[in-house]
Amino acid sequence: MSTSIVRGGYVICEAGVDAGSSRVISDGAVFQRDGVIEAVGGYDEIKAAHQADQELGGPGYLVMPGLVNAHHHGRGVSTFQMGCIDDCLETWILSGWGRRPYDHYLMTLYTAIQMIESGTTTTMYNHAQTPASGLADDVAEVLRGFADAGMRTAFSVYFRERNRVVYQDDEQFISSLPGDLAESLRRFLSAVDLSEEEYFSVFRSLHQDYAGRPDSRVTVLLSPSNVQWVSDDFLLRTKEEAARSNAAVHIHLVESLYQKEYGLRTWGHTPVEHLNTLGFLGPEVSCAHSVWLTDQDIDIMAQTGATACHNPSSNLRLKNGIAPVNAMLERGVNVALGTDSTAINDDDDMVQEMRLAAKLHRQPGLANPALSSHQALRLATANAARPTGLQGKIGTLEPGRFADLVVLDLDAMTEPYMDSGIDVVDTLLYRGKASHIDTVMIQGEVVVRNGTFIKMDKAEVMREIKEQFARPVEGRALDARKLVQGLTPFVQEFYKDWGKSEIAPHYGYSSRV
Amino acid sequence: MSTSIVRGGYVICEAGVDAGSSRVISDGAVFQRDGVIEAVGGYDEIKAAHQADQELGGPGYLVMPGLVNAHHHGRGVSTFQMGCIDDCLETWILSGWGRRPYDHYLMTLYTAIQMIESGTTTTMYNHAQTPASGLADDVAEVLRGFADAGMRTAFSVYFRERNRVVYQDDEQFISSLPGDLAESLRRFLSAVDLSEEEYFSVFRSLHQDYAGRPDSRVTVLLSPSNVQWVSDDFLLRTKEEAARSNAAVHIHLVESLYQKEYGLRTWGHTPVEHLNTLGFLGPEVSCAHSVWLTDQDIDIMAQTGATACHNPSSNLRLKNGIAPVNAMLERGVNVALGTDSTAINDDDDMVQEMRLAAKLHRQPGLANPALSSHQALRLATANAARPTGLQGKIGTLEPGRFADLVVLDLDAMTEPYMDSGIDVVDTLLYRGKASHIDTVMIQGEVVVRNGTFIKMDKAEVMREIKEQFARPVEGRALDARKLVQGLTPFVQEFYKDWGKSEIAPHYGYSSRV
Repeated sequence: MSTSIVRGGYVICEAGVDAGSSRVISDGAVFQRDGVIEAVGGYDEIKAAHQADQELGGPGYLVMPGLVNAHHHGRGVSTFQMGCIDDCLETWILSGWGRRPYDHYLMTLYTAIQMIESGTTTTMYNHAQTPASGLADDVAEVLRGFADAGMRTAFSVYFRERNRVVYQDDEQFISSLPGDLAESLRRFLSAVDLSEEEYFSVFRSLHQDYAGRPDSRVTVLLSPSNVQWVSDDFLLRTKEEAARSNAAVHIHLVESLYQKEYGLRTWGHTPVEHLNTLGFLGPEVSCAHSVWLTDQDIDIMAQTGATACHNPSSNLRLKNGIAPVNAMLERGVNVALGTDSTAINDDDDMVQEMRLAAKLHRQPGLANPALSSHQALRLATANAARPTGLQGKIGTLEPGRFADLVVLDLDAMTEPYMDSGIDVVDTLLYRGKASHIDTVMIQGEVVVRNGTFIKMDKAEVMREIKEQFARPVEGRALDARKLVQGLTPFVQEFYKDWGKSEIAPHYGYSSRV
Repeated sequence: MSTSIVRGGYVICEAGVDAGSSRVISDGAVFQRDGVIEAVGGYDEIKAAHQADQELGGPGYLVMPGLVNAHHHGRGVSTFQMGCIDDCLETWILSGWGRRPYDHYLMTLYTAIQMIESGTTTTMYNHAQTPASGLADDVAEVLRGFADAGMRTAFSVYFRERNRVVYQDDEQFISSLPGDLAESLRRFLSAVDLSEEEYFSVFRSLHQDYAGRPDSRVTVLLSPSNVQWVSDDFLLRTKEEAARSNAAVHIHLVESLYQKEYGLRTWGHTPVEHLNTLGFLGPEVSCAHSVWLTDQDIDIMAQTGATACHNPSSNLRLKNGIAPVNAMLERGVNVALGTDSTAINDDDDMVQEMRLAAKLHRQPGLANPALSSHQALRLATANAARPTGLQGKIGTLEPGRFADLVVLDLDAMTEPYMDSGIDVVDTLLYRGKASHIDTVMIQGEVVVRNGTFIKMDKAEVMREIKEQFARPVEGRALDARKLVQGLTPFVQEFYKDWGKSEIAPHYGYSSRV
């Protein structure tokens, strides 16, 4: 039995759907027992009604729901640090093949600690498909890492079986390449081949395992990687499996202009229309990126109840543009927020990511919409409950939900002055930084105190990673880099006639005329 | 006589015009005497050739030119902290009328310290016109603040005489208002009235004063605030005065869609075309914002040699969109970078502002341009020499330039690993943070050591500001807030038919079709 009272000069219970509409308690407190919130209210009232083992926070602090990173691929040593400079998604993905192999446990610990210290308590982790022989082992190491860090995780392995080099049949593309290059590409791809059977077997085993352990902090999701990367049969099979096991589904969707164009060239309509025709979309489905959505696509997303996981930093970094978040919200699409392991400061900081989202969606003109601070916070909290499969469990501070929360130093955030007319949610979204985070609690457990992760020695984790990466770059990474170097001009050539169709931007951010 | 050697594992001498083209010396050093760089080269060579009083930096550090904030209005306690929530520029400006009066000396110290600690050594400071009676005194206090902080300053007072409430003749707009509101607006405006004579008199006196003191770290500029806010006569008089006194000119230009539309409605062509017709533009002129530029406008900017001061955070925050920086650079416009006192994190951090610029200008598609790390750094360094009137004096590290430089902890920036194939300018732009800054030198003087400003006690400055702001909000601010509250609906009404003309965005960041 463990209980605590967490007090704040302000407690943000639930971020608002509209500007100015968050539920906030002044001089409030949260009372939790064994990881579940029992009461939220005025501090005096909570204090009078509950005995607690410990009291955290105080009048100079702000308490908010733990942030949810709704799209993330792990790591910690970033893709950039491993040698991949930002580029157009389609060539950047290839450069990732040349990443060094790494210790999944240590790297998961590192990314989890980094996220937790910046206020993220739950992450939608989407595991890159690794060689079939090692998948179950890798997954076990990742989950051990999240467990040891204490992080809540919506876990999935993505499945990718086709059009893996360019958006064309692998063998057809390979056969257009010079012999040597074709041969080494074939070898590279066959090493990451994974059968549908193996994929579903790993999913079922994990899902069954964690479904029986409601305290484990893990939910297991299905994940076809993207509509052009799997067969229609696989999508349908995923949909059935999701229904059977009551699991959520995570997919990438129209991340790039070229992915949309693949749909137009292949089916004569958009990828969203294709998914809709298959009956794939639904409230259990979340779609990372969702940048290149037409007006009709947005209506389909709204009608089916699918979630869009918005990744503003990643979409800028990988030359994918800006998702029409204002239009989605206006029409009732559930939008969540994630860093995709490529946050603007290369550090998976969701406080900064919320701010980037809040600034990026401000359409010129008095009458045009602008994402409010309240909405931006909601994307990173309440709106993430459904896609993680944790409806009613996370995203807000209210009785019955997990005690996943963050305490920030409000005095430091408002130094040396803050006008009394300013809303505390605006204060957070304009001035809050990860460095203002004092305490992080996940399921009632304090994992950050005085801004420092306390479950283990972060310096030791860093030291071990540093030691491992000090070794010479592995032959298999060097081989892949050589392959990618040879391959890239052919990939650029493949796309040279793509991306020329007419577009009509959702946001008018400048004008040539 | 004071000399120093500043050593870096890498010394970035000059940020490149193109991707990958910066001049960087590995294990390099800068030798400076009395504030002027005498030599830049390999550390061993510099060390052998020069005796120095002190040696700074070291192999684990990165040395770069001091950053230049090319558009800034001062303060430190931000406009947001003073109660103005981000809004459309045209209504946001009004909300600024309700800011509390403040101590110009203290606030300048605060903003200067904040900027210096985040690597900015020069700021283009544009002073908001204050009541005529106090202008010379206010300016003296501001300049005393910058001098005590040790900051290099390109100083101007902006002049604004017309269309100050909406983009229409003041008296015409005022006469459309209810009597009480009209009366209090008239009173408010007359208090900030400033005559042309007074304006030029203050300019000449300052310019003469500082022109004779080349070591003062101050250059004095002229500043008509924007084309719709001054008369054509004033613009022409400014141009003449600039030629006579060899001064640079700083102006705001097409910051908002409505400002462009004002031109179309008033002259039948864009504000840039209007300035060009007047013969106003030239290499001595820098134009803040420059968002709503047509293709033809960009050609005019390039041909006349005018500089565009890009303010990415401000333009997002105040609903002004994204300036066509890629097109400007492609056609040879000189582009500099500034925070406009409304940086994304509300802190005037130019390291973060460079990063935002680098991410924001990445157009979808393999063949479309993306601002490189080298170019982003150049906007904040070399490209700022001309608009500040400090050609050949700042922006690069080379003999004859001022020793304005920043030393960053490269080991911390690359912790725990950095692939050896990554360029150090990319490392800085992807991973560098203000918190990595170890040393800042301005004109040979060390002003930051171990990340802390050492010329005075920052905590004491903060304490004094806090004390002043702890007083009740002044009656004059409360009156202005009341005025603005009454006025805002009429301003919104004024613009209701504006902003409906066809646009064709420079960047295609999404598509409705």
